[in-house]
Amino acid sequence: MGQHTVTSFDEDLNAIDRLVHDMGDLAADMVVASTRSLVETDAVLAQRVISDDAIMDARQRELDDRAITLIAKRQPVAQDLRAVVGAIRMAADLERIGDLAKNISKRVSAVGEGSAPRSLSHSIDAMAQSVVAQVHEVIAAYEGRDSEKLKLLRAADENIDIQYTRVFRELLTYMMEDPRNITTCTHLLFCAKNLERIGDHVTNIAEDAYYVMTGMQLPLYRPKADETSVAD
Amino acid sequence: MGQHTVTSFDEDLNAIDRLVHDMGDLAADMVVASTRSLVETDAVLAQRVISDDAIMDARQRELDDRAITLIAKRQPVAQDLRAVVGAIRMAADLERIGDLAKNISKRVSAVGEGSAPRSLSHSIDAMAQSVVAQVHEVIAAYEGRDSEKLKLLRAADENIDIQYTRVFRELLTYMMEDPRNITTCTHLLFCAKNLERIGDHVTNIAEDAYYVMTGMQLPLYRPKADETSVAD
Repeated sequence: MGQHTVTSFDEDLNAIDRLVHDMGDLAADMVVASTRSLVETDAVLAQRVISDDAIMDARQRELDDRAITLIAKRQPVAQDLRAVVGAIRMAADLERIGDLAKNISKRVSAVGEGSAPRSLSHSIDAMAQSVVAQVHEVIAAYEGRDSEKLKLLRAADENIDIQYTRVFRELLTYMMEDPRNITTCTHLLFCAKNLERIGDHVTNIAEDAYYVMTGMQLPLYRPKADETSVAD
Repeated sequence: MGQHTVTSFDEDLNAIDRLVHDMGDLAADMVVASTRSLVETDAVLAQRVISDDAIMDARQRELDDRAITLIAKRQPVAQDLRAVVGAIRMAADLERIGDLAKNISKRVSAVGEGSAPRSLSHSIDAMAQSVVAQVHEVIAAYEGRDSEKLKLLRAADENIDIQYTRVFRELLTYMMEDPRNITTCTHLLFCAKNLERIGDHVTNIAEDAYYVMTGMQLPLYRPKADETSVAD
């Protein structure tokens, strides 16, 4: 890298944390753009999200490489080791969020053929906004070392599960009303499910960040408000 | 843990590889059991799969801990480092396979209320058998250091995508025929999708194993035969 090797552990870790930050921003952008591409049937925007996923993958690889090199070089223990391993785990969840956003955008052409009822687009859009807020907040709480905020965030995932259950039922109703809605609604169902799963990944990130900060696990129990028994 | 510290890198790595093997066996068992619980509406078996997922999670944590300790302690480079990092990645994919199997079993009660047509159960069962064979084969190819087999396995995922597309269309047909099928078929759709995603995780494992063995990436391009544009 041509750098002087005076770089301290903290400097190396800061570089890794900057990558977590960038991946968090990219993940949130991808969720916003994927939902917009779906709701507005915007094929160009959908393609951009699909391309962004390659950037996300490259950043995760870079983060992993830096983290493994750091562990091998400095042999960190305790809090320092937790910080590096925590960053690897958070990056894996952020990469999965990017994947899920990409998969929403991949359905844009299939959904475009049908017509989603206006109220349904609204429900999905509202769900996406909650999810995006969660992504931003978990990264901010990690950077601000705000462990109390992380606890609240994890609980807030319930709200997303409730929104998902509502969208799920709304979709079933449309399918039952008119069989011509079935194909479109099936694709929208997967999109809503992907948003719900993004919420689960935010929860994972909150748990990892909490562990990095405190060395303790958040209590395992988390009430699951997704009543469609479709937790994933 | 009262072992003498003469343990060589290879011995530590073998212990990690045994965990990969165990996780592979458990993953395959969980896929078999989850599909059986679904097709036969067996709530007891479904509960066992849900419990198995906790075992899977514990094994992944153990593997991660051992791998990180090994990297910190021995500072491996090149092939040795690839082997440890590869094991971490494979374990992450196996854990995801366990999650997906668990989520199939979580739907058993919801599906049980309706009645899945016989031919449909057969299609899902056939798909699960292909997926389980892939899980076993990828672990065997990794253990046998059979890089040629890994290439074939990755290509075989196309077959699973084709089966998924068939199940997807079959489900849409049932939904359109009779609105009373919609709720059940929606749950089955998610189950089939989970099987398809398990196939994708096998592909990831094949790619990681190939990298461990050869230090090279399998070519990035992989034809995607899932025509429902629901790649995930």
